[in-house]
Amino acid sequence: MKQIEFQTDPTRYRHWKIEVDGDVANLVMDVDPAGGLSDDYELKLNSYDLAVDIELNDAVQRLRFEHPEVRAVIIKSGKDNVFCAGANIRMLGKATHGHKVNFCKFTNETRLAIEDACENSKQSYLAAVTGACAGGGYELALAADHIMLVDDRRSAVSLPETALLAVLPGTGGLTRVTDKRKVRRDLADVFCSVEEGVRGKKAVDWRLVDETVAKTKWDDAVKTRAAEIAARSDRPKSAKGIKFGALDRKISGDTITYPNVRVEIDRERKFATIFVKGPAGAVPASVEAAHALGAKFWPLAVARELEDAILHLRFNEGKIGVIVFRTEGDAKTVLDHDAFIGKHQNDWLMREIRHYMKRTLKRIDVTARSFVALVEPGTCFAGTLAELVFASDRALMLIGKRDGDNRPPATIVLGEANFGFYPMGNGLTRLQTRFLGEPKSVDRAKEKIGATIEGQEASDLGLVTFAYEAFDWDDQQRIMFEERVSYSPDALTGMEANLRFAGPETMETKIFGRLTAWQNWIFQRPNSVGEQGALKLYGSGIQPTFDKERI
Amino acid sequence: MKQIEFQTDPTRYRHWKIEVDGDVANLVMDVDPAGGLSDDYELKLNSYDLAVDIELNDAVQRLRFEHPEVRAVIIKSGKDNVFCAGANIRMLGKATHGHKVNFCKFTNETRLAIEDACENSKQSYLAAVTGACAGGGYELALAADHIMLVDDRRSAVSLPETALLAVLPGTGGLTRVTDKRKVRRDLADVFCSVEEGVRGKKAVDWRLVDETVAKTKWDDAVKTRAAEIAARSDRPKSAKGIKFGALDRKISGDTITYPNVRVEIDRERKFATIFVKGPAGAVPASVEAAHALGAKFWPLAVARELEDAILHLRFNEGKIGVIVFRTEGDAKTVLDHDAFIGKHQNDWLMREIRHYMKRTLKRIDVTARSFVALVEPGTCFAGTLAELVFASDRALMLIGKRDGDNRPPATIVLGEANFGFYPMGNGLTRLQTRFLGEPKSVDRAKEKIGATIEGQEASDLGLVTFAYEAFDWDDQQRIMFEERVSYSPDALTGMEANLRFAGPETMETKIFGRLTAWQNWIFQRPNSVGEQGALKLYGSGIQPTFDKERI
Repeated sequence: MKQIEFQTDPTRYRHWKIEVDGDVANLVMDVDPAGGLSDDYELKLNSYDLAVDIELNDAVQRLRFEHPEVRAVIIKSGKDNVFCAGANIRMLGKATHGHKVNFCKFTNETRLAIEDACENSKQSYLAAVTGACAGGGYELALAADHIMLVDDRRSAVSLPETALLAVLPGTGGLTRVTDKRKVRRDLADVFCSVEEGVRGKKAVDWRLVDETVAKTKWDDAVKTRAAEIAARSDRPKSAKGIKFGALDRKISGDTITYPNVRVEIDRERKFATIFVKGPAGAVPASVEAAHALGAKFWPLAVARELEDAILHLRFNEGKIGVIVFRTEGDAKTVLDHDAFIGKHQNDWLMREIRHYMKRTLKRIDVTARSFVALVEPGTCFAGTLAELVFASDRALMLIGKRDGDNRPPATIVLGEANFGFYPMGNGLTRLQTRFLGEPKSVDRAKEKIGATIEGQEASDLGLVTFAYEAFDWDDQQRIMFEERVSYSPDALTGMEANLRFAGPETMETKIFGRLTAWQNWIFQRPNSVGEQGALKLYGSGIQPTFDKERI
Repeated sequence: MKQIEFQTDPTRYRHWKIEVDGDVANLVMDVDPAGGLSDDYELKLNSYDLAVDIELNDAVQRLRFEHPEVRAVIIKSGKDNVFCAGANIRMLGKATHGHKVNFCKFTNETRLAIEDACENSKQSYLAAVTGACAGGGYELALAADHIMLVDDRRSAVSLPETALLAVLPGTGGLTRVTDKRKVRRDLADVFCSVEEGVRGKKAVDWRLVDETVAKTKWDDAVKTRAAEIAARSDRPKSAKGIKFGALDRKISGDTITYPNVRVEIDRERKFATIFVKGPAGAVPASVEAAHALGAKFWPLAVARELEDAILHLRFNEGKIGVIVFRTEGDAKTVLDHDAFIGKHQNDWLMREIRHYMKRTLKRIDVTARSFVALVEPGTCFAGTLAELVFASDRALMLIGKRDGDNRPPATIVLGEANFGFYPMGNGLTRLQTRFLGEPKSVDRAKEKIGATIEGQEASDLGLVTFAYEAFDWDDQQRIMFEERVSYSPDALTGMEANLRFAGPETMETKIFGRLTAWQNWIFQRPNSVGEQGALKLYGSGIQPTFDKERI
């Protein structure tokens, strides 16, 4: 399969248009049927595949950073009679199990990014639904804060996956129906089994949409509602956005190099190392100076590059089962940057940057790879970069130093970023989740803010899994990696998906835990993906044959 | 496959012994290798299959009802050198996917019943672990309130499933490690990938067990701890237990008849109807009179019979995809019995009965069948029996009556039982879950306690999905059943598992949602169940071959 590329920009979009009009933007979905990732299927009726969602993800990010003036985003269709028909069924029918699973994970992240924009950037989305809004189409609308549905006796919202395809809505639909829209369970049951969906007043009564509007009043109503939403935002009126230039990425053999991130793949041993560099220079003198740096400002640059690296490994390097985090640089400048971001949280851009890094770290939390952090001399696991330690399944730290190494011993340095900048999907910080059974350890860690914590102390504080002296280090590491890659990738995926999310569950963790896990199960069942299954036979005119055993 | 029978009693146990000694009972696991459900495997090393767990479930129930004097239960092994080796691997290797899934569900329910006894009956469990305590063995220990591990340099606790079998611990292990024991995620990761497990002081430090005790002091220490636990209980000292006689059940063709429950299976249309009868007589005159009725007291009898019917359908009637609830009898006597139970909650038996019905209703919540309640004239969906309406995926109610039917119109009557007797796994009542988006509807319903609510009003109050008049009734019902049984059973299972649990998640819902769903997925992966998979090859000396793709 050819490499999947996550970088794009509006000049290259084939499926979306961003139309900015003052403080309101239209995000218009107008899918090019021939613009899918593969030629095996046509993206008819505004159906989508990963190519479409990569553009949507890009648009959602850019709207936040390049358009601070935009306070309301209207998602609408550029086609007549159809809002969006959902994920392309032929694509799903032909895709490997792995691609389906990763596709759904990415589309889920994109929808959560839309909700994150509503909640944390006050850039709120309004879904203006005209025409059929089915499956993934309705799931897209569900990500918006407000759903309007035209009342034309035809336009309807639906989740026909169970009835038509023998699968579940794969992008959070069931969870958002019950937990965001809070649709009554029996009505949700009816809704999710009615192919034609629900329209008009009933859609409002069942809480599936927020309002319906007659066709004659539609354009005005959407405009009015968008203006109301925009008026409630706290985004700056006259701020100037920053430009997301293309990432400066070089791929050479098994090394991928960005300015602040480097990925090295060890195919034989089946792991990849992500090196993250600390800031090259001092923190900017002022917020204005940070704005002037734009996408080159270290905290933002590193979030973008790290995100791209993670997505690349997820989709293009399926057999690389372990990802190692290393860092290079100076702890103090990392902490200085964190402090700068923290101090200027009322600046729209600094706020955006924090949330971007939060989302990037969350991508790690739901990535089906084992993560290991290696804390050695010369690394700078401090503040934001220390989160990589806490996002890892295990962290190993060297006590003291190796013979002949003149650098000071490895340290971890905690900063304010570790105590609230980056909540996980479960609503807790990574340290709170880590210390669920011993909340005092969070306080103990907090008292160490700014201190250099060496190996033994880091182990005593519970910040790393194991600390080893130099004579043990290489062996322990080797054994761990060998062991890890010898295990079944599936069992590891399931194990990690459970161990990473202790404590409370939120709509977000339910989507990735409960719903996704069930969907992954169903995506393997012969009733959907077998030769006689509904996903395979859809559109062929042949009825699927189901094994009626209930499991 | 021969029919699986859930009824047993201690005289027939082959794997467990209950030894009561004052206020402490020993529950001794001593599995008969030849006593499994099938001759295909031997239950060596105190490993278990469903046959063993059916006895455990029976023992846990009887300890609560037959032994009110027992305040602490010590789970221990009757074998040297092994506490419990977990679920039998050969059994898992040979079992169908459906059997594995249903086996895990039942064992999960049993462990939750142990925790329910600790929490709600103050009959607390202590796991006294000597010897190897692996996989399902450790999961059994995890269900106890307190885990003691002998410190003999050999005895260890472990969850080696990922490393040895390429599956997950299937009985709540991962969730209890992170959410009950609150083991730090990275230590949990190590623990769950180390075949040999963790023993001694480290097991305490990591919070895997509560204490270790040297072998020389073991017996005394266990006795002392059990006595301490018993001393904290509020169970009555001198109460007399009631006897669980064998259920009076007759199977005749496709009809199963109990005194208060009747099951009729319609194989052609692939659904079963469970008729639940209201109490035949008036409420007892006193608590003493209720005790004298013992297991024949209607609320207890109906909980037992309903539970047996549900389990029977789950395991022995896999192709019956829809279960219909109907009731027969008088609403007032149901409500009188509820009121009696409610009034006497400080009586140990009345408390037990309420929790038994709670657990039975929870079995419905996690049963992979579509449930439909039909509310017609002559039914008595009142109080406890109205919970069957709220536990159903849909409820249909007849407005008015049919021509020629002289009975009064169908009604639902709410009682105090609907507002707190039977919390779901998510900690909310079924009405609270139902009305998550409109909490005032719970209050509105509460104001109607005791009132007879006819079809249209029940629909207006949101208590039923649809109310139909007689001329529509038969068609609507027929269409619904035909539609339901035409869908993929797998998609329905996943859909229902998501729609039934709106709102908060608890350890219990995480076990059935997140963990079980991942396990079900893994139970289908070639890496575990394929011809080269770990589960198939275990014990053969041949190493499994894994597809290294991470999904």
